[in-house]
Amino acid sequence: MVSDPVFHPWSAQAKVAQETVAGGAGAWFWNQAGERWLDLHSQLGNLNLGHQHPAVVAAIREQAGRLCTLAPSFRAEVRDEAARLILEVAPAGSRSVLFTTGGAEAVEHALRMARVATGRPKILAAHRSYHGATEGAMGVTGDPRRWPLPTTGAGTVRFSGPYRYRSDFHASTDAEERDRALDHLRRLVAYEGPASIAAVIVEPVVGSNGVLVPPDGYLAGVRALCDEHGILLIADEVMTGFGRCGAWFASDLWQVRPDLTTFAKGVNSGYVPVGGVVVGERVADHFAERPYPGGLTYSGHPLACASIVASIGVLRDEGLIERAARLGATVVRPLLDDLAARLPVVGEVRGTGLAWAIELVADRATREPLVPYDAPGRPHPRMVEILRACRARGVWPFVAANRVHLFPPLVIDEDDLRAGVAEVGAALTG
Amino acid sequence: MVSDPVFHPWSAQAKVAQETVAGGAGAWFWNQAGERWLDLHSQLGNLNLGHQHPAVVAAIREQAGRLCTLAPSFRAEVRDEAARLILEVAPAGSRSVLFTTGGAEAVEHALRMARVATGRPKILAAHRSYHGATEGAMGVTGDPRRWPLPTTGAGTVRFSGPYRYRSDFHASTDAEERDRALDHLRRLVAYEGPASIAAVIVEPVVGSNGVLVPPDGYLAGVRALCDEHGILLIADEVMTGFGRCGAWFASDLWQVRPDLTTFAKGVNSGYVPVGGVVVGERVADHFAERPYPGGLTYSGHPLACASIVASIGVLRDEGLIERAARLGATVVRPLLDDLAARLPVVGEVRGTGLAWAIELVADRATREPLVPYDAPGRPHPRMVEILRACRARGVWPFVAANRVHLFPPLVIDEDDLRAGVAEVGAALTG
Repeated sequence: MVSDPVFHPWSAQAKVAQETVAGGAGAWFWNQAGERWLDLHSQLGNLNLGHQHPAVVAAIREQAGRLCTLAPSFRAEVRDEAARLILEVAPAGSRSVLFTTGGAEAVEHALRMARVATGRPKILAAHRSYHGATEGAMGVTGDPRRWPLPTTGAGTVRFSGPYRYRSDFHASTDAEERDRALDHLRRLVAYEGPASIAAVIVEPVVGSNGVLVPPDGYLAGVRALCDEHGILLIADEVMTGFGRCGAWFASDLWQVRPDLTTFAKGVNSGYVPVGGVVVGERVADHFAERPYPGGLTYSGHPLACASIVASIGVLRDEGLIERAARLGATVVRPLLDDLAARLPVVGEVRGTGLAWAIELVADRATREPLVPYDAPGRPHPRMVEILRACRARGVWPFVAANRVHLFPPLVIDEDDLRAGVAEVGAALTG
Repeated sequence: MVSDPVFHPWSAQAKVAQETVAGGAGAWFWNQAGERWLDLHSQLGNLNLGHQHPAVVAAIREQAGRLCTLAPSFRAEVRDEAARLILEVAPAGSRSVLFTTGGAEAVEHALRMARVATGRPKILAAHRSYHGATEGAMGVTGDPRRWPLPTTGAGTVRFSGPYRYRSDFHASTDAEERDRALDHLRRLVAYEGPASIAAVIVEPVVGSNGVLVPPDGYLAGVRALCDEHGILLIADEVMTGFGRCGAWFASDLWQVRPDLTTFAKGVNSGYVPVGGVVVGERVADHFAERPYPGGLTYSGHPLACASIVASIGVLRDEGLIERAARLGATVVRPLLDDLAARLPVVGEVRGTGLAWAIELVADRATREPLVPYDAPGRPHPRMVEILRACRARGVWPFVAANRVHLFPPLVIDEDDLRAGVAEVGAALTG
C-alpha cells in the first residue's frame, strides 16, 4: 500500500477519504473528473472573494516577481500599505497591525499582548468558541471536543455567552438573555478578582461553534464591564472580519471598539497564509517604549501583504460588504425561514451577512439536538449523511455538531445562492 | 506625527528605525536609494535559495494562476507532491507530512503529537535553544530573554546540551563533553521519571542560540536514551533543514532518525509562509485509527506547496546541499580560523555547512563575553555598533548576544562569500 504522504488535520489518517480538487472559480470548485460544487463554506469560511479573483491573483503574481520574502526587521512599501489599509477599515482607535501567518498565531499574540500590557494572568473566554489550535489559542477555545490534553486551558476562566435557543440563563427573550449573560459575566469577574484578569476574548459573532449572533447591547455591555475594571477586550474576528457578517468587522455591527482585534481568512481570502492583530491605543502605548516579547520570521510577508492590499481594494470597489449584508437579509434569511417553517428537523436558523447556521433537532418541542453535542472527533454519521446528500446535489456546505453552516463567498451569484440554499433544503428533506 | 502602521516583532515600537528594502536578487538586497548589501543572514536563516530564484518565482506565479487556496480536508496534486518530495529527502522511517504555516506552529504540533501519542505530559528541552514564539513553542524555548511571562514553560523540563567553549560539565575535550552531556541527560530522565516524559526536543545544531554543533556521537546518544525509555525524539530543523548545515537535515550529519522533524524556512526559502512536521512511523501508527487533535485552515496551502516542489528541485538540480558543505569546509572555516588567530576579540568560531558563529570576548583567557548574556531585548549597544560597521561595509550579518552569525544563502557566489567574510573581519577589527 502506498500511504498518503500528507498528514491530515483533525483526522484518523487511515480513515481519510477526500475529494481531489483540481480548480475553482468564484463560488465554484471542481474535481479532476469535472464534477462541480457550489462552495457554501468558502474553504472553512476563508474565501470571501471566491476562488481565483483576478485582481488578487494578479497582485500575488506581480509581487512574486518583485520580492517574495523579507525579514520583519525591515520596512517595505507593500507591508506599510497593507497595514494602512487595514487600519482604515478597522474599528476606530486602532493604531498598528502585527502580522502573523494565520488566525491561531494572531490569537497567541493578542493574548500575550494583553497579559504583558496589563501585567495580569487570567483570560476570560467563552464556552462554545473556537480560537485556533496552537497551545495558547486552544487554551482559550471553548470546545472540549477540540482539547488535545487534560491540561489544555490552564490560566483560562470560561464563561457562557448568549445563545437564546439553548439558553444557559433560562431566558425567554433576547433582552433577558442579554441582561442575564452580562450579569453572569459581571459576577464571574467579581469572583475571579478583576485585578487578575488581563482580557476577555470573544468572537463577536461565534463562528464554528454555531453562528451565535448576540442580542443587541451584549457586546457593548462586555465593553463597558471591561472598561470598568481595566480589562482589555479582544475580538477574535478571524472568521467574521472583512465582510463575512455584512460589516468590515462584526464588532462594527454594534459600534464596539475592541482593544485588540485578530484577523486572518477574509483579509485576503487565504490566497497567501496570513493573519494578524489590530492593535488599539492602550496596547500600542504600552509597547511604545517597552519591547514586545514576541515575533516570527514571516511577519509582514510581502506576498501576503500584496494580496491584502488587492483584497481590500476588491471588497471596497465591488461593494461586497454591503452586498453581504443585503444578500443575508433579503435572500438567505427568507429562504431559511421558509425551510424552518416547512421542515420539522430544523430547530432554528440564524445568522447575519453571509454567515448562517441551520440547527437540526430530533424533536422540535424539546429541542433535542439531532446528534449529541459530544459526538467525538469527526462529524456524526447522521451529519455525514446530510453532507453527502448535499454534495450529491452539487452544493458543499459545512457541518459541525448538529448544524449545517452556510458561509458562501461574498461574490456568489444571487441565483446560485438561491439555488444552493434550495438544494440544502432538499437534502434536509431527504 | 504619522505613526508607523506596522507593529514590529521583538521591538519597542517608538524605537524602530529600519531600512526600507526595495528589492533583492540572489545573495544581495537593496534599498530605495540603490544602496546594496550582501545578505549574510538570509533574512533570519530563511533564504537558502537567495532572493528571487527564478524557478521558485515561476512556480508560485503558475500556481497562483491555477488555484491559490484550498481547505486541508481536500486532496490536491501539488499538496501530495510537496509531501512526497519532502519524504524523499527526510530521514529514513518518515511516513507523512503535516503542513503548518511556519516553524512555531510546526513545533506546536510536534509537541502535541508527542504528548498525545505517548500519553505522557513532560517535554525535555534544552537551555540555549529557540523553538518559536507561540505559547507551546516558547514554552520549550531555552532562552529566558525571550520568555514573555513568568509562567512560560510550565510542563517543560530543561537540560543542558553540549557547548564545549562554555561547558556546563567542566569538560576539556569533545569526547568528555559528549559523555558528560549524555550522562547529565540520563540522570535527568531518571530523576523526572522516564514514564512521564513524552519527548526530548533538540535543535540538532543549535541555531539562534549560538550555532552549537554537538560532538560526534551526542545526537546518537540522545536517540539511544530515548529508545531505552519509549521517549520520542523531536528534531527541530526549522533553521537547520534543507541544506543549511551541508546536509538535507542536520540529523543526517550523524545518521540519526528522529521520530518527528519540524521544518520551515529553507524548505521554500520563505517565499510563501509554510512549515511542517515530518511524521515518523511510531506517531503515524498512533494516529492511523485515532483522530489527530489539531489543525489549521492553511495546512497544505497550494501556493506554499508549489514553492516547496520547486525549491527541492533547485536544491537538488543545483547541488546546493553539497555546495554548502564544501563552501563551509573550504571557504568559511579557513577564513574564520584566520580571523580567530588574528583578532583577540574573537573567542571561538564554529559552524557547519553555511551556518556559522563568531563568538566575541572581552578577554580571551577568561572567555568573558564581550557583552553580558542577559543583555535584555534588543542587541547590546556594542553589538549594534559592530552591526553598523558591517552594514557600512556592505554586508548584513546577524548579531545575537555576544555573537555575529553568518548564514548566507546557499547560492552565494564564492567570491562574494570570501569578500563578505573579509568585510565582517574588517568591521570587527574596527
